[in-house]
Amino acid sequence: MSFLTRFEPKILTQPVLKIDLNHLIENYKTLERISSPAIPSAVVKDEAYGVGARQVAKALYEVCDCQHFWVAHACEGAKIADVVPKANIFVLQGVGADSLSLFEEHQLIPVICSPQMLAFWKKHKIKGIKPVIQVETGLNRLGFRPEELKNLSKADLKMFGMVMSHLSCADEKDHFMNEHQCQNFKRIRSKYFENIPASLAASDGAFLGEDFCCDMVRLGAAMYGINTAPYRPNQMKNIITVKAPVLQIENLAKGEFVGYSATYRAASARKIAIVSIGYGDGIPRALSNIGKVFFKCKSKTYEARIIGRVSMDNIICDVTDVPDLKIGDFGYLIFDEYTLDDIARDSNTIGYEIVSRIGKNPRFAREYIRTYKRK
Amino acid sequence: MSFLTRFEPKILTQPVLKIDLNHLIENYKTLERISSPAIPSAVVKDEAYGVGARQVAKALYEVCDCQHFWVAHACEGAKIADVVPKANIFVLQGVGADSLSLFEEHQLIPVICSPQMLAFWKKHKIKGIKPVIQVETGLNRLGFRPEELKNLSKADLKMFGMVMSHLSCADEKDHFMNEHQCQNFKRIRSKYFENIPASLAASDGAFLGEDFCCDMVRLGAAMYGINTAPYRPNQMKNIITVKAPVLQIENLAKGEFVGYSATYRAASARKIAIVSIGYGDGIPRALSNIGKVFFKCKSKTYEARIIGRVSMDNIICDVTDVPDLKIGDFGYLIFDEYTLDDIARDSNTIGYEIVSRIGKNPRFAREYIRTYKRK
Repeated sequence: MSFLTRFEPKILTQPVLKIDLNHLIENYKTLERISSPAIPSAVVKDEAYGVGARQVAKALYEVCDCQHFWVAHACEGAKIADVVPKANIFVLQGVGADSLSLFEEHQLIPVICSPQMLAFWKKHKIKGIKPVIQVETGLNRLGFRPEELKNLSKADLKMFGMVMSHLSCADEKDHFMNEHQCQNFKRIRSKYFENIPASLAASDGAFLGEDFCCDMVRLGAAMYGINTAPYRPNQMKNIITVKAPVLQIENLAKGEFVGYSATYRAASARKIAIVSIGYGDGIPRALSNIGKVFFKCKSKTYEARIIGRVSMDNIICDVTDVPDLKIGDFGYLIFDEYTLDDIARDSNTIGYEIVSRIGKNPRFAREYIRTYKRK
Repeated sequence: MSFLTRFEPKILTQPVLKIDLNHLIENYKTLERISSPAIPSAVVKDEAYGVGARQVAKALYEVCDCQHFWVAHACEGAKIADVVPKANIFVLQGVGADSLSLFEEHQLIPVICSPQMLAFWKKHKIKGIKPVIQVETGLNRLGFRPEELKNLSKADLKMFGMVMSHLSCADEKDHFMNEHQCQNFKRIRSKYFENIPASLAASDGAFLGEDFCCDMVRLGAAMYGINTAPYRPNQMKNIITVKAPVLQIENLAKGEFVGYSATYRAASARKIAIVSIGYGDGIPRALSNIGKVFFKCKSKTYEARIIGRVSMDNIICDVTDVPDLKIGDFGYLIFDEYTLDDIARDSNTIGYEIVSRIGKNPRFAREYIRTYKRK
């Protein structure tokens, strides 16, 4: 590097998304320990909560010997089938006329939620596939209701390879609904499904003890670093870093306005930075005038408030108190010190929605960190 | 179709996204008329606000002879270059070390926003490309400030092929900022850029008259159906339909809870439908207990309130008053009668954020409507 290029301003424009698969693998192992002796399985629906279903499934299959994966839609199962060739892929939204052929082609396992879907399956069933039955225990979402279970014949009941349900309030340890659903599930199992494995808990339920973990836990949000047991410190590691370069640094005179609809006005002279990321990259517009961007300088982290509206491609923040900031430096939107849970809190939502939204945007330069080798 | 299959329940699981390129083309033509004699150009950044940059660019290039396209990042320009082979592709976030090679490969035109970026360009410039200069007039986002313009040499000024700026409050007809920015832009043009074309207005500014339209208008949001002149009825046609099948219909007893964290409790017996779409498909979680799903029955449209939390893959709504609803029927989340602007209002945001967020999700069955032929 010549003397000149060393001092040439560093100009960058593209936001960066970094996914730490090492941390994801560690989270999976931690959850496996916590929920032992239940069998762990991985929820990779919605592009693995946006972070990349093929990459996540492959890492868990190769390194952790994960043999059970959950997706929402058959098209998602089809996308990962070749990287987890011997694993079971369960499809939570079930099977219909618009997806049947994918079940056959990729040997996907439908989760049947209703008598009508069961009738469809019986008519079109695929040899060698034993579906899962979902039963309703209190969430009032998908699943057979008690009166619908009553109408199942003995032959119907024998068709299924597993029974599952889903908790509604498992992130609140003492919520009355947890015990209510647990008892409902127990009753249904002993009445109809004594001889097949059962799954009740997702990664929030995994922290509620053996009664909830049953035979198989479905590890999702926590694996991606979200604290699904917010009544205690997070035991998971952050896996997501979102950063974007500073495109421009300017002085703002007292009284000047910033951004769309002029929602910010400088009460005193400020220094501002324009960071090359926006809601078009999944950063919620709800962070307008509320959110934060972080800058690292000499091993210190500085917090800069977002000012004005978040726009599609840019975020403006107040860097008056950030020392030595230069064009081309990176602003951090999500990282180990300000995680999915933190940005979610500031955006008035949950980490699940944030990560699901960010990860699927194609403008990021994507980096996957993975040093674990195939076993 | 046999007697039996006709009465078999219709089971579907996948959400559907329909993009009406005919309406997009009509919107473009309407905007072209409104902003005449300015030259129209199309903003297709962020995957054409999520609806598909290649499809949109191709349609406008072939049917409307659109010759000028705007993207935010070079990687977006690279994606459409082959479908608009003779058009200009302007890159709003400019050029940097992380994108320079794409500019050369696809003959992209950078929008230069700062002296530092200009220095970078002068060092690495690509033969035959005349960049655009962005100047700041009041938004306080990207662009040269007055004191930075003063320092440009005559040779610097001659490098540019166009001058542009961006309005901050153009969706409010009488906002003082409009006239302020318009005058600033006029002053800068006459002082530095008298002999090159100028662009100030995006699709909100296009409605503000000839002074704002200058030589080229940048048509974005309005083309995608958003009312960017909300002080008058929308002159644009809706181009987006989002619908998803009903997976299950159930009765809810008085006192029962629905969804995560049990945020909905039935004050009386209700009928509920579980619709196969969620925030994993871009439907904002902010619509929990607030939003609406619509059902069509015998040429009437029925409104059903979303109850409980929107989850990643499912939305539950109250269909007590929807007659004849069946499993497999479609619930409409966005359509001609409840547009991007409507769902944005209910989600406490703008249509831009909604469409940008929905369109990039891969789980949709996507349909493009286009009957216009290549000229």
